[in-house]
Amino acid sequence: MERIAVETGLLDANDAIAARNRDRLERARTLVVNLLSGPGAGKTALLEALLPRLTPRLRVAVIEGDLATTLDADRIAALGIPAHQITTGTLCHLEADQVERALDALGDVPRDLLFVENVGNLVCPANFDLGERLRVAVLSTPEGDDKPRKYPVLFHGADAVAITKTDLLPHLDVTLDGLVHAVRRVNAHAPIFPVSARTGAGIDALGEWIEARRREAFG
Amino acid sequence: MERIAVETGLLDANDAIAARNRDRLERARTLVVNLLSGPGAGKTALLEALLPRLTPRLRVAVIEGDLATTLDADRIAALGIPAHQITTGTLCHLEADQVERALDALGDVPRDLLFVENVGNLVCPANFDLGERLRVAVLSTPEGDDKPRKYPVLFHGADAVAITKTDLLPHLDVTLDGLVHAVRRVNAHAPIFPVSARTGAGIDALGEWIEARRREAFG
Repeated sequence: MERIAVETGLLDANDAIAARNRDRLERARTLVVNLLSGPGAGKTALLEALLPRLTPRLRVAVIEGDLATTLDADRIAALGIPAHQITTGTLCHLEADQVERALDALGDVPRDLLFVENVGNLVCPANFDLGERLRVAVLSTPEGDDKPRKYPVLFHGADAVAITKTDLLPHLDVTLDGLVHAVRRVNAHAPIFPVSARTGAGIDALGEWIEARRREAFG
Repeated sequence: MERIAVETGLLDANDAIAARNRDRLERARTLVVNLLSGPGAGKTALLEALLPRLTPRLRVAVIEGDLATTLDADRIAALGIPAHQITTGTLCHLEADQVERALDALGDVPRDLLFVENVGNLVCPANFDLGERLRVAVLSTPEGDDKPRKYPVLFHGADAVAITKTDLLPHLDVTLDGLVHAVRRVNAHAPIFPVSARTGAGIDALGEWIEARRREAFG
């Protein structure tokens, strides 16, 4: 019981800071996208493919979450896009206070779009609101079509699902139909974007969806 | 600080039960292998390829950990091997008390070998001793060669590392050398087994290593 009480208290405290982040970012007219997936599903590679398509029209920044390295922020910074790395140590997810400090570190420069790449983990990040407007779940084809059922909270709560590494499908025992069907079992309405960061397939459609969400939110 | 105190208390309580599990299983001359990886790295597929090679000589059982489904235990049971599914709900890892109850459920039938397939997660399971003698970390080739550096605790603490899905290497931007080198950066000594559950490559070598560890432990 003590454990549950403490965890509930932590979530309440997190939600209060998340609300503050959301208010700050909505006032700044920044659309925030929280990217969630297991390790190695290709979140950073997806950003590397997606961001150059968005930066001609939108001012973009990225907050990266990782346990122990700055590898991902380095990859984004190499594109000339402002990136801030949060290293969580042993923490299995990002929390709103870490994002708040990252926002301070990035400075209050006007941004149209902010991606927050969460720690690679299909469990814990789903429980922590960071102040985002959209959650995009990323599922890579080699992970298999049982993942949405096995990690239902994360996929159920997603506003969109990107199915990455579609270029590997000819070499796998899963099909795109099987993966889409698996997502649909736990999430009836979120748009699903099959993409390959390697070939570029499907990246434009995902980018257009994100741009449309921003126009919807802030005109 | 309260959070740290509670987490330390939880870990202490877990370790006490893990010690009890270890004592019980060592007395039963059961070698326990805790399998750890991210989601979709192929732990269950590895067991499906490995177990039929071991069951002619060893009595084997499997405890499966998952948030929400019995899919994995069903796959193991389909091989005629005793399997017990722990569903953790929202918990991101297995804990020793869950394994203790699973041992009760499996019954005190003599077993030479017990695999515990942890929740797919490269962070949380590393912190929870279950009473195992060996930890085997599983890294699938499509996850990329940055994972050992990004999740160092789990790979550093492994007694062996299985690199799965080697059949996909021709279609990926990583090499086996790169993956082995990445593991070596955080773990200097653990044997590394490149395997493909699909083709069977490398499975015998991993099985022989596990059998040798059992002979070493219990004669």
